[in-house]
Amino acid sequence: MENFLWHNPTEIIFGKDTVKDLAEYLKKDGVKGVLLVYGGKGIFKSGAYAQATEMLNKAGIAFSEVNDIKSNPRIDKVREGIARVKAGGIDAIMPVGGGSVFDSAKAIAAGSCYSGDVWDFFEGKAKIERALPIYGILTASASSSEANGIAVVSNPEKESKVSMNSPLVYPKVSVIDPSFQFTLPQKQTVYGGVDIIAHILERVLDGDEGSELIDEQGYALIRTMMRVIPELIENPKDYDARAEYALAGMMAHNGFLSVGRKTRGDFSSHRMGHSLSLLFGAAHGASLSVVMPAWARYLYEENPVPFARLGEAVFDIYDGTDEEKALDAIDALEDFFKDINAPTTLRELGIKEEDIEKIAANASKGQTFGVLKALAPEDVLEIYKLAY
Amino acid sequence: MENFLWHNPTEIIFGKDTVKDLAEYLKKDGVKGVLLVYGGKGIFKSGAYAQATEMLNKAGIAFSEVNDIKSNPRIDKVREGIARVKAGGIDAIMPVGGGSVFDSAKAIAAGSCYSGDVWDFFEGKAKIERALPIYGILTASASSSEANGIAVVSNPEKESKVSMNSPLVYPKVSVIDPSFQFTLPQKQTVYGGVDIIAHILERVLDGDEGSELIDEQGYALIRTMMRVIPELIENPKDYDARAEYALAGMMAHNGFLSVGRKTRGDFSSHRMGHSLSLLFGAAHGASLSVVMPAWARYLYEENPVPFARLGEAVFDIYDGTDEEKALDAIDALEDFFKDINAPTTLRELGIKEEDIEKIAANASKGQTFGVLKALAPEDVLEIYKLAY
Repeated sequence: MENFLWHNPTEIIFGKDTVKDLAEYLKKDGVKGVLLVYGGKGIFKSGAYAQATEMLNKAGIAFSEVNDIKSNPRIDKVREGIARVKAGGIDAIMPVGGGSVFDSAKAIAAGSCYSGDVWDFFEGKAKIERALPIYGILTASASSSEANGIAVVSNPEKESKVSMNSPLVYPKVSVIDPSFQFTLPQKQTVYGGVDIIAHILERVLDGDEGSELIDEQGYALIRTMMRVIPELIENPKDYDARAEYALAGMMAHNGFLSVGRKTRGDFSSHRMGHSLSLLFGAAHGASLSVVMPAWARYLYEENPVPFARLGEAVFDIYDGTDEEKALDAIDALEDFFKDINAPTTLRELGIKEEDIEKIAANASKGQTFGVLKALAPEDVLEIYKLAY
Repeated sequence: MENFLWHNPTEIIFGKDTVKDLAEYLKKDGVKGVLLVYGGKGIFKSGAYAQATEMLNKAGIAFSEVNDIKSNPRIDKVREGIARVKAGGIDAIMPVGGGSVFDSAKAIAAGSCYSGDVWDFFEGKAKIERALPIYGILTASASSSEANGIAVVSNPEKESKVSMNSPLVYPKVSVIDPSFQFTLPQKQTVYGGVDIIAHILERVLDGDEGSELIDEQGYALIRTMMRVIPELIENPKDYDARAEYALAGMMAHNGFLSVGRKTRGDFSSHRMGHSLSLLFGAAHGASLSVVMPAWARYLYEENPVPFARLGEAVFDIYDGTDEEKALDAIDALEDFFKDINAPTTLRELGIKEEDIEKIAANASKGQTFGVLKALAPEDVLEIYKLAY
């Protein structure tokens, strides 16, 4: 096991009817004005907007809004939020939404305390030195953004979807009320679930011995997700299933599954998925259910062990050689994605064969990346072809 | 799943040769003088004392010492530490040791900021309002004290061993270098391991539905402990096994296994074990390997389900009714304790049959306690008889 640092400062308020509890935190911290950050109609339907604004009104805290944050959030909305903060009266950021909204809020929180352009943080041209505090209300689990310091934002001008990461943008407090997720479209439950599973797989399949205990924690999280996604397709208002999903979503990418590993994980699939979102608007989860099985098939023969372990722990596959178990595990994972109506081919995303080279070039940018296997541009091209 | 709050502010520095890294934290926080709190010779043997004092000397930070903290630590040593702090020059507490040392450090940290007697916190007569920061160096895993806000201290005058709990006494930073545990006596590795397993069982066996995901995390932790304890009996200097043990020890009782449960767990076995330590000086872990199987046998017929689930997830017991699986699981747990040379009877602790009534009276204090089953004084007596 490798040495590691672990610190996750976010306070989690988890459960039904808990938005109102946020007021005491805001008052204790002397917050006078917040910037509400949100997407579209979802938070009106779920009741999250009404509860948030009622809480703020009762607490006597003023608010402004930046809204219409899309999935795969864009830097222009972040800049709009920063401009609003710089106009005055705002001393905290309050995302009400899912990962895209939290990610945008983090970029706004940091960019508001910086004199240059916020994209500098994403390009590594500047380091975050300060950020406004974030008090968030989660309405869709997937990215763990409610409990980590990561933000992924797209810059269409630069054909770039990249992340920034800082201990200064962990939410100070995150409210996770699973019942806000009752009204999510089924697709979002499925794609969020795929994203959560991908975050776990990107650790347990990175080929690093790391910690057997942490891998076991990861396998248990995957088993939970595979149990609750079908339950939620059946009954989207099953509170306990929503709660398990939200808890797993928070745990999958809050950093703990990376402890003891040489790298923090192998995020090749996320990187290859990002290009599908950026160039073809693919939903983030859908991009992952397409890319992951192809990535796995491309390299399992060289690296069967992590896939074989996954097969044993998650899919009860005990027969055969490690290679055979690995292939069975990949098949089983792909079958699960099909069972929950997640796409597994580029064609299902409406992508044409002639687009593949462009996609591969966007993902690679001429670089080699990856942990389990270092993927040169020609490897990446082959993986997209397998995914076609 | 029940609503919950989750916040664990402790920063963990985990791994080999990491004590030196503590210096930058102390300097950043402006610490000028620390009270080193430790037990006996162990930290000289492991090298922890030498590394801690070298780090402090290099950082130009003065220190005083309170030492000779015993397992089942006593309030008089805590008072001694508080007196030393109040004499001046100390602005942080640095436990170097295991749970007893960390627990004592927490009581010192809180008691040093209080004008009354520190025992008031344990009797619930006063609430902790302030505490000095704690920067700890763990040399024996068992209690998770390095990552929680709990302190258990004995008061022999009052024949009382009780706990206090405050968010203000979480260590600010804990260094966990598993290699310090290479030199632990085998008994301590075994008893620490039993304590860790007990902390997990006291959650997954509390009879509350809570979260299936959290139970799964707990089962995985138990499987890890059952794997690494025998490995460490075989080879006490197996770094990876020590690291898994230390990581599991930190996770078992840092509060996360309690999230989503109605209560924080059923700590009846700990309570009954405490009386054996207090009255007969039983090692904490030894008291638990004696009490837990007896507790389980006394009540599993009324409550077979959590024991049956444990049997499936940890001991691969799939045959029979829930009652049969439950009994098989209890047998398997007791067999495991025997295999690792942990006592499972009061007799092995040198306790005589005629002492049982006194022990039961001390544990019950005329009260009923317990979650899975409410234990009246007569139930407690029967459990000790079963343990004889």
